[in-house]
Amino acid sequence: MEAIVLLSGGLDSATALAMSRASGRVCHALSFSYGQRHEVELAAARRVAQALGAASHRIVSVDLGAIGGSALTDNTAVPKGRSEAEIGSGVPVTYVPARNTIFVAHALAVAEVTGAQELVLGVNVLDSSGYPDCRPEWIAAMQQVARLGTRAGVEGHPVRLVAPLISMTKADIIRAGVALGVDYRLTHSCYDPAGDGAACGACDSCVLRRRGFEQAGVPDPTRYV
Amino acid sequence: MEAIVLLSGGLDSATALAMSRASGRVCHALSFSYGQRHEVELAAARRVAQALGAASHRIVSVDLGAIGGSALTDNTAVPKGRSEAEIGSGVPVTYVPARNTIFVAHALAVAEVTGAQELVLGVNVLDSSGYPDCRPEWIAAMQQVARLGTRAGVEGHPVRLVAPLISMTKADIIRAGVALGVDYRLTHSCYDPAGDGAACGACDSCVLRRRGFEQAGVPDPTRYV
Repeated sequence: MEAIVLLSGGLDSATALAMSRASGRVCHALSFSYGQRHEVELAAARRVAQALGAASHRIVSVDLGAIGGSALTDNTAVPKGRSEAEIGSGVPVTYVPARNTIFVAHALAVAEVTGAQELVLGVNVLDSSGYPDCRPEWIAAMQQVARLGTRAGVEGHPVRLVAPLISMTKADIIRAGVALGVDYRLTHSCYDPAGDGAACGACDSCVLRRRGFEQAGVPDPTRYV
Repeated sequence: MEAIVLLSGGLDSATALAMSRASGRVCHALSFSYGQRHEVELAAARRVAQALGAASHRIVSVDLGAIGGSALTDNTAVPKGRSEAEIGSGVPVTYVPARNTIFVAHALAVAEVTGAQELVLGVNVLDSSGYPDCRPEWIAAMQQVARLGTRAGVEGHPVRLVAPLISMTKADIIRAGVALGVDYRLTHSCYDPAGDGAACGACDSCVLRRRGFEQAGVPDPTRYV
């Protein structure tokens, strides 16, 4: 079975790719260059795709910078040092408007052209940044779109959206990845890295990642500033 | 009230824009450069946006040519001379995988950033080319995505998708547009225009348009080869 795996270069999607590979899928990685301030994650995505045996890796450009409205694509400051309670409350300024909807929309097109039967998303809700487009109800809505809005869908074989991490904690995800041999040194999570790619250690993404390694009892291989 | 109007430069979306303007909306036109072989339609979109008083006109680039899988974005021949019965049966090769889903996904982002309350789509089903992503059930699914996958949605005020033409025939649409003063000479519908922009007269889009003018009893202002 062939799967398209959305691969940001972060910890979650790398683990989702490893799980999909372990279950025997031929995996085609799909990443997006969208004007993200942490574009260094695309280099991470390339390393991860290669290390985990993706059959191909496609990087699609989408111009979200022209749309704006997010600290990840404009000059708004990325929040630092927020507590876990703060991270869990409300939609943060790092939310990129409709980003995952745009990514999945493109992935539906790629799946339709390549004939892939599965679309693997590394989203999860327990230790997430509070983005609306990471929740199971959003996934269900996008599945309906795949069923009703594509040729494959109306012909009775819509691509199936799967989110293997959806109900896992960050620690669960790290433990699963370690068991599958994921080298997390290859991944990048920080929203606001230094020029040399070192993680800031204080943005929401760094906070969640660092705590995940602690809770999993796994040494954190992240290079911090 | 502010509305984003998806504007291809064709007959339908021009009419949808005119209707939205007539109902008092401040309309922001949104078009896409996606590697379409009939990119001349973007010049038409500019003319239409200006003529119908759009408050702004944004053209977003999306690289569907890199994904392929459609006669509108690759070198597959555009079908010519098909009968109305043929046009109505099955998904044609001019279907662009997930195109309208990708367009609406971007529009959700634009609406979220600009605060627009409505998203106006010129899709219709009666005299359409048989695309799955022009149907009411697809619109309903995208409305769910807007409700569940955006900040505006989770904060209780999702953008509202409206499709004023959804159950109109092409003749109905033309009559409505003429009543609102739409100058259809400004619009472009042909999938496979000549180098000077003249319509081929034989692709599905030309067949539906030409018949629409006949049935509406309105002189067809289209310049054919």
